[in-house]
Amino acid sequence: MAIVVTEIDRVSRTIADSIRGFGVATVHEAQGRKGLMLPYMKPVFQCASVAGSAVTCEVAPGDNWMIHVAVEQCKEGDILIVTPTSPCDDGYFGDLLATSLQVRGVRALIIDAGVRDIATLEEMNFPVWSKTVFAQGTVKATLANVNVPVVCAGALIHPGDLIVADRDGVVVVPRLHAEETLRRSREREARELQTRARLAAGELGLDIYNMRNLLAEKGLKYVTKNKEE
Amino acid sequence: MAIVVTEIDRVSRTIADSIRGFGVATVHEAQGRKGLMLPYMKPVFQCASVAGSAVTCEVAPGDNWMIHVAVEQCKEGDILIVTPTSPCDDGYFGDLLATSLQVRGVRALIIDAGVRDIATLEEMNFPVWSKTVFAQGTVKATLANVNVPVVCAGALIHPGDLIVADRDGVVVVPRLHAEETLRRSREREARELQTRARLAAGELGLDIYNMRNLLAEKGLKYVTKNKEE
Amino acid sequence: MAIVVTEIDRVSRTIADSIRGFGVATVHEAQGRKGLMLPYMKPVFQCASVAGSAVTCEVAPGDNWMIHVAVEQCKEGDILIVTPTSPCDDGYFGDLLATSLQVRGVRALIIDAGVRDIATLEEMNFPVWSKTVFAQGTVKATLANVNVPVVCAGALIHPGDLIVADRDGVVVVPRLHAEETLRRSREREARELQTRARLAAGELGLDIYNMRNLLAEKGLKYVTKNKEE
Amino acid sequence: MAIVVTEIDRVSRTIADSIRGFGVATVHEAQGRKGLMLPYMKPVFQCASVAGSAVTCEVAPGDNWMIHVAVEQCKEGDILIVTPTSPCDDGYFGDLLATSLQVRGVRALIIDAGVRDIATLEEMNFPVWSKTVFAQGTVKATLANVNVPVVCAGALIHPGDLIVADRDGVVVVPRLHAEETLRRSREREARELQTRARLAAGELGLDIYNMRNLLAEKGLKYVTKNKEE
Amino acid sequence: MAIVVTEIDRVSRTIADSIRGFGVATVHEAQGRKGLMLPYMKPVFQCASVAGSAVTCEVAPGDNWMIHVAVEQCKEGDILIVTPTSPCDDGYFGDLLATSLQVRGVRALIIDAGVRDIATLEEMNFPVWSKTVFAQGTVKATLANVNVPVVCAGALIHPGDLIVADRDGVVVVPRLHAEETLRRSREREARELQTRARLAAGELGLDIYNMRNLLAEKGLKYVTKNKEE
Amino acid sequence: MAIVVTEIDRVSRTIADSIRGFGVATVHEAQGRKGLMLPYMKPVFQCASVAGSAVTCEVAPGDNWMIHVAVEQCKEGDILIVTPTSPCDDGYFGDLLATSLQVRGVRALIIDAGVRDIATLEEMNFPVWSKTVFAQGTVKATLANVNVPVVCAGALIHPGDLIVADRDGVVVVPRLHAEETLRRSREREARELQTRARLAAGELGLDIYNMRNLLAEKGLKYVTKNKEE
Repeated sequence: MAIVVTEIDRVSRTIADSIRGFGVATVHEAQGRKGLMLPYMKPVFQCASVAGSAVTCEVAPGDNWMIHVAVEQCKEGDILIVTPTSPCDDGYFGDLLATSLQVRGVRALIIDAGVRDIATLEEMNFPVWSKTVFAQGTVKATLANVNVPVVCAGALIHPGDLIVADRDGVVVVPRLHAEETLRRSREREARELQTRARLAAGELGLDIYNMRNLLAEKGLKYVTKNKEE
Repeated sequence: MAIVVTEIDRVSRTIADSIRGFGVATVHEAQGRKGLMLPYMKPVFQCASVAGSAVTCEVAPGDNWMIHVAVEQCKEGDILIVTPTSPCDDGYFGDLLATSLQVRGVRALIIDAGVRDIATLEEMNFPVWSKTVFAQGTVKATLANVNVPVVCAGALIHPGDLIVADRDGVVVVPRLHAEETLRRSREREARELQTRARLAAGELGLDIYNMRNLLAEKGLKYVTKNKEE
Repeated sequence: MAIVVTEIDRVSRTIADSIRGFGVATVHEAQGRKGLMLPYMKPVFQCASVAGSAVTCEVAPGDNWMIHVAVEQCKEGDILIVTPTSPCDDGYFGDLLATSLQVRGVRALIIDAGVRDIATLEEMNFPVWSKTVFAQGTVKATLANVNVPVVCAGALIHPGDLIVADRDGVVVVPRLHAEETLRRSREREARELQTRARLAAGELGLDIYNMRNLLAEKGLKYVTKNKEE
Repeated sequence: MAIVVTEIDRVSRTIADSIRGFGVATVHEAQGRKGLMLPYMKPVFQCASVAGSAVTCEVAPGDNWMIHVAVEQCKEGDILIVTPTSPCDDGYFGDLLATSLQVRGVRALIIDAGVRDIATLEEMNFPVWSKTVFAQGTVKATLANVNVPVVCAGALIHPGDLIVADRDGVVVVPRLHAEETLRRSREREARELQTRARLAAGELGLDIYNMRNLLAEKGLKYVTKNKEE
Repeated sequence: MAIVVTEIDRVSRTIADSIRGFGVATVHEAQGRKGLMLPYMKPVFQCASVAGSAVTCEVAPGDNWMIHVAVEQCKEGDILIVTPTSPCDDGYFGDLLATSLQVRGVRALIIDAGVRDIATLEEMNFPVWSKTVFAQGTVKATLANVNVPVVCAGALIHPGDLIVADRDGVVVVPRLHAEETLRRSREREARELQTRARLAAGELGLDIYNMRNLLAEKGLKYVTKNKEE
Repeated sequence: MAIVVTEIDRVSRTIADSIRGFGVATVHEAQGRKGLMLPYMKPVFQCASVAGSAVTCEVAPGDNWMIHVAVEQCKEGDILIVTPTSPCDDGYFGDLLATSLQVRGVRALIIDAGVRDIATLEEMNFPVWSKTVFAQGTVKATLANVNVPVVCAGALIHPGDLIVADRDGVVVVPRLHAEETLRRSREREARELQTRARLAAGELGLDIYNMRNLLAEKGLKYVTKNKEE
């Protein structure tokens, strides 16, 4: 038995649109250095960043049946998250499913498995982050759940959570923390702009962050020659 | 002792030219979801797809001597397949060997090992699919066979088999199945174009493929709330 | 306790500028096929080759404090080498540290760990070779050494050694061998140009390198049919 | 900031003791083929199976400070789950921490990272499942959370969940499903014993499970010779 | 569609029994250093060596249906070879299938995927070489072929080929080469015994194999101090 | 060209014998948490710990010629370190070479590559730490250096350095630091014995190490309920 949850609370589209530009590194810092997917998740072509609301989809290994079910649950502004119930590199997703998602206004696919037809995905400009690229086809025989909490590439995702993805990877922000994380991302970005200007002017991080005393206290020594050698 | 087989039956160039555009995912489906190399095989620069007739070349680990022997066996329209007799990441192949292959009309190199000089390979536009990129040089000391059946990246290849490669990976079609696989690729492509048009118009795969009844029979339930949480 | 060595002998900038164009594969051959970092070290964006003098920096896992210390030790023409004291994929380095290095004239970062903000790094055109890309942030709590000999991605590096990096990978040349390696790289490149011209004219490596006799002596046989099959 | 949750609801010790003997494979089947940690989690010495109630502990990469905090939260019958906030192979745990856990009646450690002193752990007979073995020491500088939900080796764990581990791996059963999963494990084991007796008597799975008709319907053909060859 | 080939020619049981004791390393040398499976194939418990005749079985990812079909094709003295049609780590095989194979006199399982119930497999003393151990269960939904040529862990296997496995790994000997390989294994073993006696008496390989002149010719120099340092 | 350095300074046998029992984890801590080989280095059978003086040996990929050369340079109490000039998993070493080393009083082999004949190695009780086990044979065609500094599994080793290996891995201690590291290992072991007694008596690390105040200062909060959930 398996279930499809049809009514989920989504993160607001305004929040997603506002946070997109800050990027994954900033957003993950802003929510306390958590929520990142593992670093093997890569964009299959070099695309801009995306942000949206998660629709989650489990799939059996080598079986993409439930993606067809999940497509129907997707709305404009969503990002589809697909995770196999055991590790699999097969090519679960190609240009046909991408066409279906694109016409519904889905912003991206994040899949802890393989995808194929990536030349066409790039022509269509449908962004995908995946574990690998593999042409291997799949069957349609086994049920799994849609819109239940899933672990995808090491990160826990609830349906409706905020997803941000760019060339640095993918981060998940719990829906109820999205607004605060947006606010903190803005603040962090503003601080970083100032710091960047000072660094570009030649100031050192050692001085801007007042590190010299603490380094000395911990025991850092400056020597002119390495006596060990 | 080692052998070089000098007269091999090649897949027809017309078939190779005709099948190239269908791409690896379609061709592998058309021959019954088999013949794919493992997903670690990647193009070293982003090139178009290629198709051609396999010349096979074994090499010892860290030893590229036999590639020089294999070059002489290559003709216009061929694709050179190189596989080490035990796993090795060394850079067996660079711009000099590529020059030699290109002047003979060879269409690509597929190697289950490393290559180097990839900036030059891209300038020359000589396509290469490899396991990795590594500058490590090789020696010339140990014999191995040319134009015998080999296993390359998990796929069995006989000399003269049809090879198709694109951004999705590499697929092998046995020479005697090439014509039928071309025909089935055409049919599959035609069907997919129709399906894609329907999907682009907003129809769902669930309906196009008549999945709803079967999903219900297997026990799929639609619920509005996830009671597990 | 940890040390920062402040006065190091650097490889000459003229040598670095002269050797840059020969590329990693040629330089590693010219010094006797050694000094390569492991093949997992990749440029995070597709950049030209770089060459410079090594500043070495150890870091604790998940802790980038010492990079801030190392920045101050960097001068125009340097390449910063960062290696964690145990394996770690965290994103130790992003656009702020890149700004600081770029304003000091540092030519590249080579790091046996993760980096982030890679879209911005590409916009800034600050070249980075790394083990991976990961947005994961780091702390600033633990000391380590700057400008001591380190092992980075399998290669031994002393401060002031010559580093050359391109799309083929990264190679280290001991400072005192840099001049001779430059000379040998020039010679090798000249020889390769001649060979390449002959290959482009259709001559075979088998003949240019006089391999036929040796292959026959070792027992290579040419046959028209593979009797094994 | 970080938190330690001091009062957690634990799975009953009776349930843990009763389910232990069924083993990981049976328990994961009994709860619907889910809850497994990734297959890289291995016992560091060949021990019997364990079952207990989870205490969860996050750690920073290369930093085992929070394990000392978690020890105090452990009670008789618990299993300590440790997961780094980003991937790390360091040796977070050795004989001293094992002594502390053993004296409190903790049954095992499950850690998505490295451990050390494994000869002593075996002498003490303190069971450990880990990602790797690595002598690398850690620091004590960074806070993280204790007894919050964590993802460990791909599995979601809440404090108080039932953990079962044996030579096949590690499985997590949500606390509120533990009783039902125990019941289903018993039923499954009983059925399997019967099946095993029939198989041992020479009956075929094809007949016991009535597979022949379905295989024929799907298109399976029995042939005496493979015409493909 | 899929096929089961029911009549296969098997390697002689006498040959298998005679070659078993020579071990994988010797047998692979005796047939010219080929036929090895990749080194990730490991025995799941520390067992003696086995040798037998291959029955080959393809399986879909996450689907062990065809193993039930293959069991019926197995006879006394066989070794069952299972290979997924795309890479998969799931636990395809456990104590029930082992019971079925053992009662038919099958000598071992070799599987390029995961297995489970390994404590019971050891109690039963049913030897298994696998890619990994994973409790993950599989479904029964997709057909594949039995007794066709397969690639398993990088090695090509025809039904009826001779398989030898021990703690060093797994080697495949084509059926028609088995007798000659047995003869050569005997000769090699005899030579090695003599060499081992001389080495045990203190003679050096340098002298036994007459290496000193050749090393000097190639340019090996003995020095008392390393001037490089 | 390649060299063999015939006269090397060795670490004292008394120091090696004295430090052996402290184990890798303690020794690496005693010298400041450095010198460890990467965690993939594992004993091929479960043996006791060893300690001795390093003889270093480079080998070409797939070529074990230089091990024969290195054997002659080994003396009683040595440990042979073998490292390929580029990564390779081949079985460079088996029972014949082990016989030769054992008769010379060599204590162990540490090799960043594969070995074979491991059942015999265990019978002989000749300890080996390796990257993998692989039956693949090697050739004898290419020179490399003996008794020069090498990087082996990420660690820098000079000939004559102290090597300690046990089930936790392998650590290198520079020869001139061996005596001090022995002294510090003793002190550390003594302190740990005391601590272990206190922990066994039920005291907490939190109290023994005075961590409570520092944890509170950094912001650790104890709560009875996790409000996040």
